[in-house]
Amino acid sequence: MTQARPCVALTLGDPAGIGPELVARLLADREAVAQANIVVVGDPWLWQEGQRVAGTRHELPEIATWAEARGQAGPVLLPLDSIRREEVEYGRVDAACGASVLKILAHCLDAARDGRIDAICFAPLNKLAMKQGGLRHEDELHFFAEYLEVQGDVCEFNTLGPLWTSRISSHVPLSEAASFVTPERILSATRLIHDALVAAGVATPRIAVAALNPHAGEGGTCGREEIDVIAPAIEACVAAGYPAQGPFPADTLFRRARDGEFDAVVTMYHDQGQIALKLLGFERGVTVQGGLPIPITTPAHGTAFDIAGQGKASTEAMRHAFDVACRMGRHHVLQRGTNVDC
Amino acid sequence: MTQARPCVALTLGDPAGIGPELVARLLADREAVAQANIVVVGDPWLWQEGQRVAGTRHELPEIATWAEARGQAGPVLLPLDSIRREEVEYGRVDAACGASVLKILAHCLDAARDGRIDAICFAPLNKLAMKQGGLRHEDELHFFAEYLEVQGDVCEFNTLGPLWTSRISSHVPLSEAASFVTPERILSATRLIHDALVAAGVATPRIAVAALNPHAGEGGTCGREEIDVIAPAIEACVAAGYPAQGPFPADTLFRRARDGEFDAVVTMYHDQGQIALKLLGFERGVTVQGGLPIPITTPAHGTAFDIAGQGKASTEAMRHAFDVACRMGRHHVLQRGTNVDC
Repeated sequence: MTQARPCVALTLGDPAGIGPELVARLLADREAVAQANIVVVGDPWLWQEGQRVAGTRHELPEIATWAEARGQAGPVLLPLDSIRREEVEYGRVDAACGASVLKILAHCLDAARDGRIDAICFAPLNKLAMKQGGLRHEDELHFFAEYLEVQGDVCEFNTLGPLWTSRISSHVPLSEAASFVTPERILSATRLIHDALVAAGVATPRIAVAALNPHAGEGGTCGREEIDVIAPAIEACVAAGYPAQGPFPADTLFRRARDGEFDAVVTMYHDQGQIALKLLGFERGVTVQGGLPIPITTPAHGTAFDIAGQGKASTEAMRHAFDVACRMGRHHVLQRGTNVDC
Repeated sequence: MTQARPCVALTLGDPAGIGPELVARLLADREAVAQANIVVVGDPWLWQEGQRVAGTRHELPEIATWAEARGQAGPVLLPLDSIRREEVEYGRVDAACGASVLKILAHCLDAARDGRIDAICFAPLNKLAMKQGGLRHEDELHFFAEYLEVQGDVCEFNTLGPLWTSRISSHVPLSEAASFVTPERILSATRLIHDALVAAGVATPRIAVAALNPHAGEGGTCGREEIDVIAPAIEACVAAGYPAQGPFPADTLFRRARDGEFDAVVTMYHDQGQIALKLLGFERGVTVQGGLPIPITTPAHGTAFDIAGQGKASTEAMRHAFDVACRMGRHHVLQRGTNVDC
């Protein structure tokens, strides 16, 4: 067990959001803390501010380098100056906050590349602030992928407890969604979620592929993608060692998945999965970044600027995101065959 | 109250399905029965068979004509021979069963046209059996509309308790769904569900119109239908006296609707509403036929051929369908200003 104890980097997220208070409250949870060697990365004043808002008092020993994290009895703080207190106003989209988030995430990615950590869990960030603060990518996933020089496909998974979803297209007009239904995309989304679920401890993931059309096309009378593309793609997945089933009509598939019949649903367009997951429990959702060499997770919710700094935010999704990072981090440790240097 | 007591025709549905047992159990429910003057229309042997399966024993006085229903103290049976016992096998799709359903529904529609009844509630039918039995229409809604010589638009509503949905397109390939997003269709789907909700007792329905694209098109960067078509159509709805709001991103809209913020959601394609409603409670769903001169309702579920004749079927949706028929039937009575001749 000790050998599989992962080293997880934990960031405070956007300083103007609920991230710092969520991390403070998470670290007050002894059960959560026991799962990993935790390195909080960020500005010491912001960690203290998070504690003030959360009403917690927890001393984090400071370390100067990732190497010093090794053998610590509890969570530690790796201080990194990224923003001054007077620059932060709760609830404001701000370039300085976005730049702070980028600097700290980059520091964690460096540690990942150097094999110092097994997983990253980041508190909510604000994409607009990050773009104002220098993010040149479409989103954080593509920033991670370029920073880590990933050559293959990447995919964001929306997860809710034991139910994970991937999708073959994301922010595209619905009128174009059908044009993204290709064998390559279906195979990629299936492979990535399969591997991520294995990494999260699901030995043989049961993966369902959703249909695109109403009633799965009704035998071709209501759309032919199921017959012409999706079914053959599923066969190709199975042949490639990624067992998948389907295509299943989307409107009944999510009931079946909710009731435990599947571990994952590969969806054909953004709202297909999002309507279902948000109904099933948005407040518990976790986003997992798939296709990267290190597990990275975050709560599905945002910075909640409307209640930031008030100590009201629920830690439920943050706790789930941390749990997933720990589970996947343990797998990362075992795959390496040895604990990383932390 | 007596004046607003509607006369509701109740059919047994497909003889090979769970309909007869559902009606038998419904009529054993004193609270349900008290809401209306009920005329069960169908084969006496099938009513008895439904009672046998349901384990109920309830004597229904037989009447010979709709006119005799007037002033009856409880439910009555209007016998109509449509199928022989030896023709029916539980769980089998059968032309004779489909023809039986058509004959009985036509008899009810005649009564509606003659002003004898205020609503129809039909037990589950099987579309394929009906097509084999002579249905020339796409579905029962279009059969009703033609039989009743309806000139205007009609629309099927999927409802779940207080939440109703209409849609601007139904069984069309997803790749074509965007082409159905027109001002005329949005206005029609909004007007029909508005009027039906008023008829169901919701004085000022709060109607939300769903967006088509992810995140409602993100200001036009991810699809322009929200800006070019849906928003102007909503303005036209409001101007025409049908207050509607939106367009709202679909993935969060159904959470809001579930939590009571809206009475109705006008959806842009089949699965958008069906994914949500089936997750929220398929077993309680009711289908309401909109745009007809008389309220017609039915459970959203089908004939459940796999458990027909076993006495296991849940009456929950049937009871809800009957309740909606009674509510809308009362409005029908009040609109006529006098009770109908039953």
